[in-house]
Amino acid sequence: MFAFLAWRPRRTALAVLSILGLAFLQTSAFAQSDPLPSWNDGAVKKSITEFVGRVTTQGGADFVPAEQRIATFDNDGTLWCEQPFYFQAAFAFDRIKALAPQHPEWKTRQPFKAVLEKDPAALAASGEKGLLEIVAATHTGITTTEFNKIVAEWLASARHPRFNRPYNSLVYQPMLELLGYLRANGFKTFIVSGGGVEFMRVFAEKVYGIPPEQVAGSSGVVKFRMDAGAKPSLLKTPKIEFVDDGPGKPVGINRFIGRRPIFAFGNSDGDLQMLQWTAAGEGIRFAGLVHHTDADREYAYDRQSKVGKLGKALDEAAARKWTVVDMKQDWKSIFPSEK
Amino acid sequence: MFAFLAWRPRRTALAVLSILGLAFLQTSAFAQSDPLPSWNDGAVKKSITEFVGRVTTQGGADFVPAEQRIATFDNDGTLWCEQPFYFQAAFAFDRIKALAPQHPEWKTRQPFKAVLEKDPAALAASGEKGLLEIVAATHTGITTTEFNKIVAEWLASARHPRFNRPYNSLVYQPMLELLGYLRANGFKTFIVSGGGVEFMRVFAEKVYGIPPEQVAGSSGVVKFRMDAGAKPSLLKTPKIEFVDDGPGKPVGINRFIGRRPIFAFGNSDGDLQMLQWTAAGEGIRFAGLVHHTDADREYAYDRQSKVGKLGKALDEAAARKWTVVDMKQDWKSIFPSEK
Repeated sequence: MFAFLAWRPRRTALAVLSILGLAFLQTSAFAQSDPLPSWNDGAVKKSITEFVGRVTTQGGADFVPAEQRIATFDNDGTLWCEQPFYFQAAFAFDRIKALAPQHPEWKTRQPFKAVLEKDPAALAASGEKGLLEIVAATHTGITTTEFNKIVAEWLASARHPRFNRPYNSLVYQPMLELLGYLRANGFKTFIVSGGGVEFMRVFAEKVYGIPPEQVAGSSGVVKFRMDAGAKPSLLKTPKIEFVDDGPGKPVGINRFIGRRPIFAFGNSDGDLQMLQWTAAGEGIRFAGLVHHTDADREYAYDRQSKVGKLGKALDEAAARKWTVVDMKQDWKSIFPSEK
Repeated sequence: MFAFLAWRPRRTALAVLSILGLAFLQTSAFAQSDPLPSWNDGAVKKSITEFVGRVTTQGGADFVPAEQRIATFDNDGTLWCEQPFYFQAAFAFDRIKALAPQHPEWKTRQPFKAVLEKDPAALAASGEKGLLEIVAATHTGITTTEFNKIVAEWLASARHPRFNRPYNSLVYQPMLELLGYLRANGFKTFIVSGGGVEFMRVFAEKVYGIPPEQVAGSSGVVKFRMDAGAKPSLLKTPKIEFVDDGPGKPVGINRFIGRRPIFAFGNSDGDLQMLQWTAAGEGIRFAGLVHHTDADREYAYDRQSKVGKLGKALDEAAARKWTVVDMKQDWKSIFPSEK
């Protein structure tokens, strides 16, 4: 496609692109500099750039047409931090605190009492039933429009307990570069996450450059209704519709995307089936895991963690020679610089 | 963006684009000719081009950033023909005939007997239960990969009873032009249809230029499983998961796309809520209906039709001044020329 470069000076090409308002192509097609500056050189970085090189080399044995370059990413622990607990849980807990004045009964009722008193043992004791009650109280009974506003306000005001930064600034700089690098090479990037689809869509476009229609996640049943004045709205109900985790991830990929990714990245056993499904496709495929090994700069956890447990998928990655990012070793920086 | 054109001959710009391998931009940014040649001039065509002009005029009061230019289209009766019965039903009936030798019991069992004997009254008498049995027998119990292959083979071999052409050639030429025109103006085009999502994805990319990930539809529950040799597959089960019709359309838009369209086109009462949801957004919106008025070249039907009934939505279109295409009057041609 860019054989043009062989016989015209590169400057001319850039000038033409600028004149045409196509300057954005410069970063993709012409950039000579390292597209992944926050990744240390080594086998992991090489596995990524070699894969991308092979699937984008026209006429090569491994060439994949652009429309089939589907890349899927887990979110929690893969694109942003998930410790000391999932950020969506932090949102739910903060929301319960905010709603508590309207619910005096929560002072004595579990699981709300546990959240208000910061009592993790009582919260854990409330089990899945308790969790669903928290989700229902904080994520449902309101319209999608109202929910989006509440999440946006929370992201603007809440701070992470350890890093004291907005949650949506605790995204991984190397993964932001990877998303951009893939897109510059014709990939379409998707989130496929166990997190709530509507929660993630509030920030995914701004933070990751991933538009709402490329975010797949867990969901509750939403109902269309006509309000007073014939104004339609979508009401979020407490009924769970779809859990986009574990075996649900390939199912979610089938439902939302409709074709098999050639590139997938996760960080926990909940991503195993997505990686299996991706790797089992015809032709070369990339399956990657982020291994959290950096307690100083972020967190170190795997087989024993309650959040983002990584055991089976780590074993399978070793057996199948998938790429495993050693966060401490492979990443020069973790989060973007504070603004 | 293309101020360049003001001081350089247009030919030079085209040559540069060709050299850069960007010839595809010619059709979008530079075309001076009518982008909707199969649409007769008149109020309907003008309502489309004026809307597109307003939302794409940078600095204008109605400008909409490209990432928010979401356009959704119903499929049956809007993008392709739906008479004398939905094409997916034709697929199901043909599939029952093909499978009948393996099911001798179908000769005496409804609703299969009705299909094999072409007995519409008996088929209608089997009701929704019968319909679900037909869907289960023809669409489930196989993997997604197998299903895709079966649909592709059917599309290649089956012929429409009246037009004697492949079903996927009975798409509306004016709508193909409209899809291309919208995309050339930065819109992202989606299908939001009551049809089966996996059925439509087999042909939507090739026929409409709409990739699988931009097709929303009805679906059954799909299960991830590991076959012998640790080969993962997705099994289609008979359980209905989601019906993307009527009030399900705005719900499907929320689930699959995650933002409200600014442009929507349908043709039946099953599209009413999608049009209401689209029209109720902030800023200018386009809501359109195809009214089938051409018994000579296609079909003429509305309030009394069993397939694609159009009554309530037609009334609401009149009350709200939505665009209503009079097929006979507004479309120069119906289907693409035969190849």
